[in-house]
Amino acid sequence: MPAPVSAGGSLLLTGIGELATGEPGGRRPGPVALLVEGGLVSWVGREVELPEGAGAERVDLGGRAVLPGFVDSHTHLVFGGQRAAEWEARMAGRPYAAGGILTTVAATREARDGSLAAGCARLAAEALHSGTTTLEVKGGYALEPAGEARLLRVARAVTTETTFLGAHVVAPEYAGRPDDYVELVAGAMLTECAPLARWADVFCERGAFDADQSRHVLTAAAAAGLGLRVHGNQLGPGPGAALAAELGAASVDHCTHLADADVEALAASGTVATLLPGAEFSTRSPYPDARRLLDAGVRVALASDCNPGTSFTTSMPLMVALAVREMGMTVDEAVSAATAGGADALRRDDLGRLTAGRRADLVVLDAPTIAWLGYRPGVDLVTAVVRGGQLVAGAWPRR
Amino acid sequence: MPAPVSAGGSLLLTGIGELATGEPGGRRPGPVALLVEGGLVSWVGREVELPEGAGAERVDLGGRAVLPGFVDSHTHLVFGGQRAAEWEARMAGRPYAAGGILTTVAATREARDGSLAAGCARLAAEALHSGTTTLEVKGGYALEPAGEARLLRVARAVTTETTFLGAHVVAPEYAGRPDDYVELVAGAMLTECAPLARWADVFCERGAFDADQSRHVLTAAAAAGLGLRVHGNQLGPGPGAALAAELGAASVDHCTHLADADVEALAASGTVATLLPGAEFSTRSPYPDARRLLDAGVRVALASDCNPGTSFTTSMPLMVALAVREMGMTVDEAVSAATAGGADALRRDDLGRLTAGRRADLVVLDAPTIAWLGYRPGVDLVTAVVRGGQLVAGAWPRR
Repeated sequence: MPAPVSAGGSLLLTGIGELATGEPGGRRPGPVALLVEGGLVSWVGREVELPEGAGAERVDLGGRAVLPGFVDSHTHLVFGGQRAAEWEARMAGRPYAAGGILTTVAATREARDGSLAAGCARLAAEALHSGTTTLEVKGGYALEPAGEARLLRVARAVTTETTFLGAHVVAPEYAGRPDDYVELVAGAMLTECAPLARWADVFCERGAFDADQSRHVLTAAAAAGLGLRVHGNQLGPGPGAALAAELGAASVDHCTHLADADVEALAASGTVATLLPGAEFSTRSPYPDARRLLDAGVRVALASDCNPGTSFTTSMPLMVALAVREMGMTVDEAVSAATAGGADALRRDDLGRLTAGRRADLVVLDAPTIAWLGYRPGVDLVTAVVRGGQLVAGAWPRR
Repeated sequence: MPAPVSAGGSLLLTGIGELATGEPGGRRPGPVALLVEGGLVSWVGREVELPEGAGAERVDLGGRAVLPGFVDSHTHLVFGGQRAAEWEARMAGRPYAAGGILTTVAATREARDGSLAAGCARLAAEALHSGTTTLEVKGGYALEPAGEARLLRVARAVTTETTFLGAHVVAPEYAGRPDDYVELVAGAMLTECAPLARWADVFCERGAFDADQSRHVLTAAAAAGLGLRVHGNQLGPGPGAALAAELGAASVDHCTHLADADVEALAASGTVATLLPGAEFSTRSPYPDARRLLDAGVRVALASDCNPGTSFTTSMPLMVALAVREMGMTVDEAVSAATAGGADALRRDDLGRLTAGRRADLVVLDAPTIAWLGYRPGVDLVTAVVRGGQLVAGAWPRR
């Protein structure tokens, strides 16, 4: 990791060609300057209005665009094995025996702690280098109490935003006895995992858990002090979004198949709709209709869903490009959803926005505007990544 | 640029997890070894069959996949300006005045030599870092004799595969007089440019040049000793593919709208169909039907079409991912099209294949198989890039 340039001191970025604050409508044309003090953004404004004498360490960005570090609010980074052959068979339209989440569960249970931790750290580093400064990380590939706790311990090495996902699918030992598994999740598994997690999540979908089972787990998790998240409405219409809104969950994720009543409930509840276009890309599924959600006043986030089965990517720039190409979002909306939207989905008002008082997490692009994230798909434009005012990936641009 | 590891000597790569030779059906499971001597592949085979004493410099790739360096047989890398605002308006469904090729023509004519050269070199370096070891580069943004010659001189700094594209669109000075412009292209402009180019290309499409005009330019170019390429059937049905087949062009590029007779003509002529999914991604257009072409026995190539208007990406890994997601190609077919297919489109039998006697241009992926190019979209998996036996980008993996 490079040496910090601003160890608790102040850092002044000048020559910003365009600054996206992360707020919807928050694109400001340059030249803009941004001042960091004590790891927080302390001032943002037109360069000509810069307070005199500001900034001990000064970096001229030469017209490059700056945006908040991406907040990837939905990942599954702790797992064993990989499923490339399953992906390849799916793309070719060939049947593939023994695919799915349980394949990863088997490999994860067998994996050693060190291997899980190394894999998670490698993916977190990869994400950081593509501009992700905050990650949410779920468990969900052990499906038994000690195993889920182990996954959360691994996740805590890379983030404080850890999510208990015992209710990912029914554990193989409970095949045919889903309600018994739900009791385990809402009972002993939750007890063991709650101290290690900030959030609880349930895969509320046909083939996983129904509305009653999901409500049971989520209610118990809330009583244990966890915030709530839901996987819902991915594969077909279902009760996930309505349940998330009813329980005041922070976010319902996927949202591909929503009824009008779901959209209204989300808009009314303030529950964030987190869209995961990497999953649609990797499963050749229809993309969610972001335009409909935005037009209805629903808060939208974009996240990677990084997982070894259905979206094995950490690239938030690709999510932005897909959101614009495939989901009817403007550049501004997509970047806001990938930054402030992700922060809202994690109920973190200290992150995801480049305004005074927020944590100085930001990305410098080798591009004059943030539009280049979609205009130049597949190209690595991330020049420098700053977290809490420290340079943590890439390098300051040479003049 | 890193120091060469094998200055004309021999290099032995061992521990290859999967080797793609570039040929269709050319995926070989590891452990495979590959020996380079004098810049050429001299031996490829199972590691246990390695000739004794082979290889002065030895690098263990630790199970990583190896494929031929990408051959990107269709790019427009020499231009002034950029068109992000036009792209953004198109994505948002907003009208945008003064877009299109002529915007880039105006900016290119105004640009200084040094600026054009720097832009081209930057994009070529970007391409190299994502695994592209051979680039074709077209002119076409000057539309007058000295200007087109200038673009080709710039292009020759990064490749020998330069293409005269005076017939990109009618120059603004010739508006309403397309036949006069065609005479200029096939006359004075060709005379000035032919010594600087290996290829001639024509944009044969409604709004650009019709079949007679295209034939006139291509026939003159062939007489001047240039090989032939055609932009055709991109925006609608048209005569491009049939003309390319009739004239024995090396490639017809885009091929989105083909009649059955076009497909048959391509299969019979051996003219390569070069597909450019970056253009469809960036213009939100329907993708070409690669499956139909492959099933009819047409040789298919994949290229980036890198240009500032309709596909501003150099990423061949993204082209492979899009080909699998959107165009019905298998991983094997997509990788072959992006390597040996590109070489065929440039009639280069020394490139694009990792078999004995070919140039040792190859990519080492941080992945166990080439399927990860599609399984991990948007993620930079390129660990090392070798051209002519020399490490030219990335680094050898650490053990």
